[in-house]
Amino acid sequence: MAVREALSAAPVHELFVTDAAAARHADLVGLAAAGGARISPVTDRAAAGLSDTVTPQGIVAVCSLLDVPVAAALAGRPTLVAVLAGVADPGNAGTVIRVADAAGADAVLLAGNSVDPHNGKAVRASTGSLFHLPLARDRDAMAVLEACRDAGLTAVVADPGGELDLYGPAADALLRGPHAWVFGGEAHGVEAGLARRADHRVRIPILGRAESLNLATAAAVCLYASVAARTR
Amino acid sequence: MAVREALSAAPVHELFVTDAAAARHADLVGLAAAGGARISPVTDRAAAGLSDTVTPQGIVAVCSLLDVPVAAALAGRPTLVAVLAGVADPGNAGTVIRVADAAGADAVLLAGNSVDPHNGKAVRASTGSLFHLPLARDRDAMAVLEACRDAGLTAVVADPGGELDLYGPAADALLRGPHAWVFGGEAHGVEAGLARRADHRVRIPILGRAESLNLATAAAVCLYASVAARTR
Repeated sequence: MAVREALSAAPVHELFVTDAAAARHADLVGLAAAGGARISPVTDRAAAGLSDTVTPQGIVAVCSLLDVPVAAALAGRPTLVAVLAGVADPGNAGTVIRVADAAGADAVLLAGNSVDPHNGKAVRASTGSLFHLPLARDRDAMAVLEACRDAGLTAVVADPGGELDLYGPAADALLRGPHAWVFGGEAHGVEAGLARRADHRVRIPILGRAESLNLATAAAVCLYASVAARTR
Repeated sequence: MAVREALSAAPVHELFVTDAAAARHADLVGLAAAGGARISPVTDRAAAGLSDTVTPQGIVAVCSLLDVPVAAALAGRPTLVAVLAGVADPGNAGTVIRVADAAGADAVLLAGNSVDPHNGKAVRASTGSLFHLPLARDRDAMAVLEACRDAGLTAVVADPGGELDLYGPAADALLRGPHAWVFGGEAHGVEAGLARRADHRVRIPILGRAESLNLATAAAVCLYASVAARTR
């Protein structure tokens, strides 16, 4: 439940809660109050309006924004980072944040024209992972690429036309080192100019007759190839 | 586009098409007519009602059912099969069918209380992969497991509590051989009784603070671990 995660990760300014939810989640309400949040009782209908979810749980937390400057997200010698470059769909963004968390990524960077990860759908798709690792945003995707390089990361674009095979020896070697995976938008992938300026472009092998994978499954395959390369 | 795939894969009985779509896709209409389909002009509104999509493309094909008996789907010495056991969400089922196709799977089996893959959302999420590999359904999940064994496949359940690590040497060895991945429903994974009776239960390592992956990303990670094991 995202409210529980929020309480442990970010300052909660205010908690809107229905009577039923307050009874069901008395521990959360106590935790929020102890942390200095204002507790505001609301009706079911008001809670639904606040949370824009189809099946509201009757409890809505208003938190500080979670993102930090790109350089701050990359502090502390990261070894695995996910960059979303022009990812517009909030559900996809949230799902990739969840996968990045599971794969042990040190940060997720939203570059270019990507969705705001505070979007309600992104928060829900991340199932709390939004609060587990540093997030940063910068509209200038090239600046994000440079920041990754400055942090000692090799920039690797997931690209169906990439020159390296994900499971070939060259990709295996580079995935053992510190690197940032760059994933593009749903329709056209990573913009060509950005892909050219990355260090490598890596393709996921497609063995059957599918034309491609969708963004979330492609990101899962790539991020877990990094896990595998570091495990063996 | 799913209609194009359908025309090349399954007998089309009837094609409903708007005037605009007929002009845009004259080749498809010709192909369908040549294949013996009846061509029925419809209004935009009627096409929208037929196809249940939000942005209808004005062309709807009525095909034969695509699924075959389980034994037929497993004919011809399969080496990689995906089993969906109790997967209720059509979008998830379609996405996993797409990933299975991309990973070079020989068949997808829908076991237990799984969604009908002919569901419109499943068809769209599969982006045509539904037509690329044999699909079979059987409500008796144990019978599906036995059929996989009879076809020479090791039955491997994706299970967060599994005894083998996906990237450990034991899993690596078994993924080089013929096997069937068994994936469970969105909420509870593979039912415990079924998981116990499989040959192995394999866990995806979770390195961060995420509790789990969602079904589609977990299936992508597992099916591509099979690709990797066979590539190296």
